[in-house]
Amino acid sequence: MRTVYVIGIGAGDPEHLTLAAVSAMNRVDVFFTIDKGEAKSDLAGLRAELLERHVARPHRVVVAPDPPRDRRAAAYTDAVVDWQGRREAVYAEMIEAELPGDGVGGFLVWGDPALYDGTLRILEAIAERTPLEIVSVPGISSVQVLAARHRLILNRVGSPFLVTTGRRLAAGGMPADVDDVVVMLDSGNAFAALPDRDLDIYWGAYLGTSDEVLVRGDLHAVRDRIVALFAEHRARKGWIMDTYLLRRRLPAG
Amino acid sequence: MRTVYVIGIGAGDPEHLTLAAVSAMNRVDVFFTIDKGEAKSDLAGLRAELLERHVARPHRVVVAPDPPRDRRAAAYTDAVVDWQGRREAVYAEMIEAELPGDGVGGFLVWGDPALYDGTLRILEAIAERTPLEIVSVPGISSVQVLAARHRLILNRVGSPFLVTTGRRLAAGGMPADVDDVVVMLDSGNAFAALPDRDLDIYWGAYLGTSDEVLVRGDLHAVRDRIVALFAEHRARKGWIMDTYLLRRRLPAG
Ligand SMILES: C[S@@+](CC[C@H](N)C(=O)[O-])C[C@H]1O[C@@H](n2cnc3c(N)ncnc32)[C@H](O)[C@@H]1O
Ligand SMILES: C[S@@+](CC[C@H](N)C(=O)[O-])C[C@H]1O[C@@H](n2cnc3c(N)ncnc32)[C@H](O)[C@@H]1O
Repeated sequence: MRTVYVIGIGAGDPEHLTLAAVSAMNRVDVFFTIDKGEAKSDLAGLRAELLERHVARPHRVVVAPDPPRDRRAAAYTDAVVDWQGRREAVYAEMIEAELPGDGVGGFLVWGDPALYDGTLRILEAIAERTPLEIVSVPGISSVQVLAARHRLILNRVGSPFLVTTGRRLAAGGMPADVDDVVVMLDSGNAFAALPDRDLDIYWGAYLGTSDEVLVRGDLHAVRDRIVALFAEHRARKGWIMDTYLLRRRLPAG
Repeated sequence: MRTVYVIGIGAGDPEHLTLAAVSAMNRVDVFFTIDKGEAKSDLAGLRAELLERHVARPHRVVVAPDPPRDRRAAAYTDAVVDWQGRREAVYAEMIEAELPGDGVGGFLVWGDPALYDGTLRILEAIAERTPLEIVSVPGISSVQVLAARHRLILNRVGSPFLVTTGRRLAAGGMPADVDDVVVMLDSGNAFAALPDRDLDIYWGAYLGTSDEVLVRGDLHAVRDRIVALFAEHRARKGWIMDTYLLRRRLPAG
C-alpha cells in the first residue's frame, strides 16, 4: 500500500521545522508539489531549502501545475470546493503515475496541515477510492508565530478564542460573545472597517521570514499604518500574507 | 540585561521539538522549573529527556515548589489570577537569586506557550518591574497533535473554529454559531452532558505519548466509551489530559 506524509513545515522560518518532520522527510521517496506560480515563489524557496538542508537520502520531486481558481466567485465555498475537486484529479494522477505501489510520498505543507489547508481533505477523498495510508505531521502555524513574536497568549484566563477568516470578519464584524479573535486569509484589511472602539490589534505579515513586519496597538490608532504597510509591501514583493489577533479590552477584574 | 526564553516543547512527543527550540535550549544557562508534584511526573520526565538529548553545553536546572492552587474555588478566574500572583513571586525570586545580570534563563513549556499557559503572563508582569527580555519560542500544541492523529483539518472551508475550555462548554453548551469547537482543560467530561444529536467527537488523551488513546465517532454513540476510558486511564496513571474536537454534522452542500 502507498503511504503519503503530509508534513507541516512551519510558516516561513526554516528553524520551525520539527524533528518529527525531519524524520518524516527522510522516509519519503517522492515529494509532490503544486506549482503556485511566481507569487508564491518564496514558499517554494523554503521547501527547496528544507529539502536540501535536511534530506540525506535519494528522492524525487514531482511538480504539477495548480488548476486555476476563481478568486472572484460570489460563493467562496463553492469556488474552493470546485477547485479542490480539480486539484484532487491532479493529485490522484501524480500519485498514480509517480509513486510505486509500496512507495512513500510526501507533501510539504505551509504551517500546520490542520489549519486552512486543503491537502488532507484532498488526500482523504483520494483514499476513499484507492488504497492510501495518510500520515499527518503537525507544523508550527502562522498563528503560533504571530503569538510568539508579540509574546502573546492567545486565550485569556479560562476564556475561549476564535480563529476565523477575513471574509467572515468583513461580513459579520467582531463577534459579541468572544473577546479574542484570530483572523487569517484576509486579503482586504477587514480589520480597518470595524467600528469597535475597544479593540487592540496584534498584526504580523511574512511571519518567520526576513521580511517580517509587526504592528500592535489600539485598532483605531494603528489601522491606517497597517493598511499602508500592507499596500507598500504587497507592491514591493508581489504578494503578502498576514495574520492578526483582535483583542477586546475588558474592564479590569 | 537578563534574557528569558519561554520554549514550547510539544505536548508529549519528544520528536515534536522544533529546531528553533533546540537552538534556544542551547543558549540557556539556567533552566527554571516548577515542581508540580508526582501527578505530573511524566511531564518532568519529558523535560529531563529533552535536556539530556539536546543540550550539549553546561547548564543548571533550578527547581522551585509550585504554590498551592485552590482548584475548588467558585470563581475559577479569581483562583487562577491569585495563584499566578503567588507564582510570580516564586519566579521573580528564582530569577533574581539564580540568574546573573547578563544571564540567559529558560522555561520549558508544555505544548505551545501561547495556549492556556501562564508562563508568559507571569514573566511579562515581572518584566514590568525589572529589566528582562522575554523571547517566546512556539511549540506543537496538544490541539495540533489531536488534529494530526485523527488527520483532521480543524476548520471547514471558509469557516471559523473556536478553542474553549471544559468549564465553558459545561456552562454554555455547544455554541449555536460555530460548528467546530476544540475543548481543552476539561476535567469532567463536559461532552457527555451535551444533548446535541448532530455532533461528532474526535477525542484524544495522552496525545503524543506511548499512552495515547484516540476515539472518534458520533457523540452519543461513543461518549460512554470515552467516559469509561477516561476513568480507567486516570485511575491507572494517577492523572489524565485530554483534548477533543466537537464537529457539527452539516447538511451536504
Ligand atoms: C491557506 S492559509 C494556510 C495556513 C497555514 N496552514 C498555517 O498553518 O499557517 C494562508 C493564510 O495563513 C496565514 N499565513 C500563512 N503564513 C503566514 C506568514 N508567514 N505570515 C503571516 N500570515 C501567514 C495568512 O493569514 C494566510 O492568508
Ligand atoms: C494548561 S493547558 C496547556 C496546553 C499546552 N500549552 C498546549 O499547547 O497543548 C493543559 C490542557 O492541554 C491539553 N493537553 C496538553 N497536553 C495534552 C496531551 N498530551 N494530550 C491531551 N491533551 C493535552 C489538555 O486539554 C489539558 O487540560
